[in-house]
Amino acid sequence: MSEFELIQLFFTERQASTPTIPLGIGDDCALLSPRAGTQLAISTDMLVEGRHFFAGADPKLLGHKSLAVNLSDLAAMGAMPLAFTLALSLPAADTAWLRDFSDGMFALAAQHQCQLMGGDTTKGPLTICITVFGEIAQGRALRRDAAKSGDDIWVSGTLGDAQCALAGYLNQQALSASDLEQAASRLHKPVPRISLGLALQGIAHAAIDLSDGLIGDLKHILHKSGLGATIWCDRLPLGPVLQKQVQAIQYEFALAGGDDYELCFTAPRARRDDVLAAARLAATPVTRIGYMQEQSGLRMVDAQSNARAFSFQSFDHFQS
Amino acid sequence: MSEFELIQLFFTERQASTPTIPLGIGDDCALLSPRAGTQLAISTDMLVEGRHFFAGADPKLLGHKSLAVNLSDLAAMGAMPLAFTLALSLPAADTAWLRDFSDGMFALAAQHQCQLMGGDTTKGPLTICITVFGEIAQGRALRRDAAKSGDDIWVSGTLGDAQCALAGYLNQQALSASDLEQAASRLHKPVPRISLGLALQGIAHAAIDLSDGLIGDLKHILHKSGLGATIWCDRLPLGPVLQKQVQAIQYEFALAGGDDYELCFTAPRARRDDVLAAARLAATPVTRIGYMQEQSGLRMVDAQSNARAFSFQSFDHFQS
Repeated sequence: MSEFELIQLFFTERQASTPTIPLGIGDDCALLSPRAGTQLAISTDMLVEGRHFFAGADPKLLGHKSLAVNLSDLAAMGAMPLAFTLALSLPAADTAWLRDFSDGMFALAAQHQCQLMGGDTTKGPLTICITVFGEIAQGRALRRDAAKSGDDIWVSGTLGDAQCALAGYLNQQALSASDLEQAASRLHKPVPRISLGLALQGIAHAAIDLSDGLIGDLKHILHKSGLGATIWCDRLPLGPVLQKQVQAIQYEFALAGGDDYELCFTAPRARRDDVLAAARLAATPVTRIGYMQEQSGLRMVDAQSNARAFSFQSFDHFQS
Repeated sequence: MSEFELIQLFFTERQASTPTIPLGIGDDCALLSPRAGTQLAISTDMLVEGRHFFAGADPKLLGHKSLAVNLSDLAAMGAMPLAFTLALSLPAADTAWLRDFSDGMFALAAQHQCQLMGGDTTKGPLTICITVFGEIAQGRALRRDAAKSGDDIWVSGTLGDAQCALAGYLNQQALSASDLEQAASRLHKPVPRISLGLALQGIAHAAIDLSDGLIGDLKHILHKSGLGATIWCDRLPLGPVLQKQVQAIQYEFALAGGDDYELCFTAPRARRDDVLAAARLAATPVTRIGYMQEQSGLRMVDAQSNARAFSFQSFDHFQS
């Protein structure tokens, strides 16, 4: 199968045209016509075999996850998904793999009416690079630099189960088969919190999605907003599998485990009811886990308000 | 050096903000505000070590080429460069390599006032994925499907010297050191024909950039426009190094050699003077090499109008 037949078969025939995308796959460039008064939110993520996913990973899950981690970045800006490009390096034109990969990817894309508008296909080590485009009304983005002192800090969903699955696969953590299966769904099928991000527009100040671990990701908000924060480390919403682990692991995985793809956001205290209403609207649970403050640095305190120190770090691609 | 220090050092500090990009590197997404009445032209290209460039390639040239091949796609739409994202997979955080790579990339970006607005950095096999954004007035794009029967077919610059260099490196073609050096500059430092693309707006009908070879790339215009074409294969503008080779090689490299990054475009016969004026404005030579016609298929004829048949093919990532 040639490169062009492959693109035709797996990546173009399922695409409906939209007014926003007058020209999609099949030219030197795609054309995108943003609606008047809107900005584009743009993010790119590259997933490398052996680094972001195991060799031999289920292609359908991989198709889902590759797009999900990008959509999660749109969610963290409060943006509505519009379209994406896909650049794919493949060791061989494996049609069964491509069918499953594109099935997983397009199923998630359809849920969010997010259209594949262009791409590139080449031979090489398995690498997936997606660039995603979302629409947002002028000035409404949830930026990392917009947190205010006194803001509540919230997270969506639960934390740490993706890390449980990873630790299970690496035999660093003993999990029952059913626990591993449950945790694995968090690792392999992250749910981008698009509805919540949209519902938080005009309510939340700052937001970020949790990919490298709560501490490391929250520090980006602190740094960009020029503020500090206190986190109640006993109020973190633990995933159901993490709840069964010992406390040291609970802290570590909830605070520094990667791959959760939940939203962490700040909002004024006066908007607590609005935050909870937005969460109900988005059918996404949220938990208040701390507050922003002038005093720089990130403090973790327990239920008795005693300071807790932890030695673990967030994930860094060039330090681990 | 951490992932974030690396990004800070090599990819953010040189960036000036622009009204079009109210938020660049450093958040979940970048924000892009297109000007009223404009569309975005978007293209993505992935370059893989050992496939698109040799292992150990000069990082400065690689930084140039990675962006140049993407800008070339904008040129082929007649779009004005605005911004790009860079996803980079690197075996190690090699600061000397990164300095040179970013030097090469930013030098070309500055020439075209094209801003790095976001990206991703990860550990893995050396892979470079750029997505580029250009601006184009509504309805003015040079699309592959817009050629008309009777249009002249033109190409910019000269053809085949990049392929001469590649054949030289692979010892498939004997070149003098000075010829190899001259040809190599075409392979390593392609010049995206941005000015020509912009000047051809409103004059040309269809355009494509030549990356896989004239025959294969022109066939995309034929296919999308539902037409055929005749090419005068003795009128092709050969690169100065290719001019020194035997005729069989001249035909093969000019018709099927990759990596030229010239524009091939069609325009009405009545606009010949306008095409030449646009080429002068863009300081880019152009050559008329054939014409579009209703009769399907691509015909090559020599100076005596005799049909010529060739066995070579354009490059395909999954057939070579």
